[in-house]
Amino acid sequence: MYPQLLAHIKRYVSLTPQEEILLCEKMELLKFKKKEFLLEPGKLCKGNYFVLSGLVRQYLITNKLIEQIVQFGLESWWITDQESLANKQPSAYYLQTVEASEILLLTEQNRELLCEAIPRLESYFRIMMQRAFVAMQRRVGFMLNYTDEERYRYFADQFPGFMQRVPQYMLASYLGFTPQFLSRIRAKKA
Amino acid sequence: MYPQLLAHIKRYVSLTPQEEILLCEKMELLKFKKKEFLLEPGKLCKGNYFVLSGLVRQYLITNKLIEQIVQFGLESWWITDQESLANKQPSAYYLQTVEASEILLLTEQNRELLCEAIPRLESYFRIMMQRAFVAMQRRVGFMLNYTDEERYRYFADQFPGFMQRVPQYMLASYLGFTPQFLSRIRAKKA
Repeated sequence: MYPQLLAHIKRYVSLTPQEEILLCEKMELLKFKKKEFLLEPGKLCKGNYFVLSGLVRQYLITNKLIEQIVQFGLESWWITDQESLANKQPSAYYLQTVEASEILLLTEQNRELLCEAIPRLESYFRIMMQRAFVAMQRRVGFMLNYTDEERYRYFADQFPGFMQRVPQYMLASYLGFTPQFLSRIRAKKA
Repeated sequence: MYPQLLAHIKRYVSLTPQEEILLCEKMELLKFKKKEFLLEPGKLCKGNYFVLSGLVRQYLITNKLIEQIVQFGLESWWITDQESLANKQPSAYYLQTVEASEILLLTEQNRELLCEAIPRLESYFRIMMQRAFVAMQRRVGFMLNYTDEERYRYFADQFPGFMQRVPQYMLASYLGFTPQFLSRIRAKKA
């Protein structure tokens, strides 16, 4: 059983003890070292990944050959390439652990099977998508309307623990500015 | 009955004739002139809007007092402020018609009621959110990795009809560049 996953789901929908057992049976526990790949470009994404411990990043290599991080997955977050899943097409992304991680894989096939058995789960996954969408839309707003320094300050206020865990160059890639800028602003703060 | 809406839903999930009737009964038909507001900042978003005809834009006024368009809603698209809906909080956005529009409102209360009566609809709305998320994620990718000109060319290739319908300043706001840039690039093409 995976109490961490069940607690997350039960924040949004109810589950009977039998449903909890079924749900956990359909999850596949994966253990990764630091810098291992869950997904690589050209491959089909298998399903949704729920991070039990550790940290995962989703990134792509741009046409200017730069690593661009689009998302992080922390403890109790779902992460996946939705585009590959939705369109059943090869991924353009890497999913890679930043730290040693324990991760639950819910394959798309098992997700569909679970949603048939427990229809309330569709509601849970709809809410997860809605929250991911809102986060992505806010990110667009930040990129359009805030300066580099404002973005950095906001992020540092919201996620202080996270700032300590992630290498500077990854944070710079995620927030869309140069590592030089990040060093400057951190020096200013000290 | 709203065949356009039913056709859209039935691309993703099946509906019985009885379900079709129930679904259409729960929709509220609204008619707007050009430049009317469906939603304004400070108000709670009522539900999801399905555009039968016309065009809607979602925008906010930034802290630099600039109109920033985050999304358009064309025929057979859903549009709403997901953040206000998800968190039941006052909206930060305007939803405004760009053209005279006929729009179906599905209130959040009616959406929940329909999903209870027709559980497959949860799957439909989950897929709608997934598609919206993928579109928003691609937009982040474009903003980070493409030049203004590349973004313009891509958009013009993908949505030629749309380019003709939208005032230049709105297109500039959506794509994140100045109207001057847009005039220059259009002149170059001619």
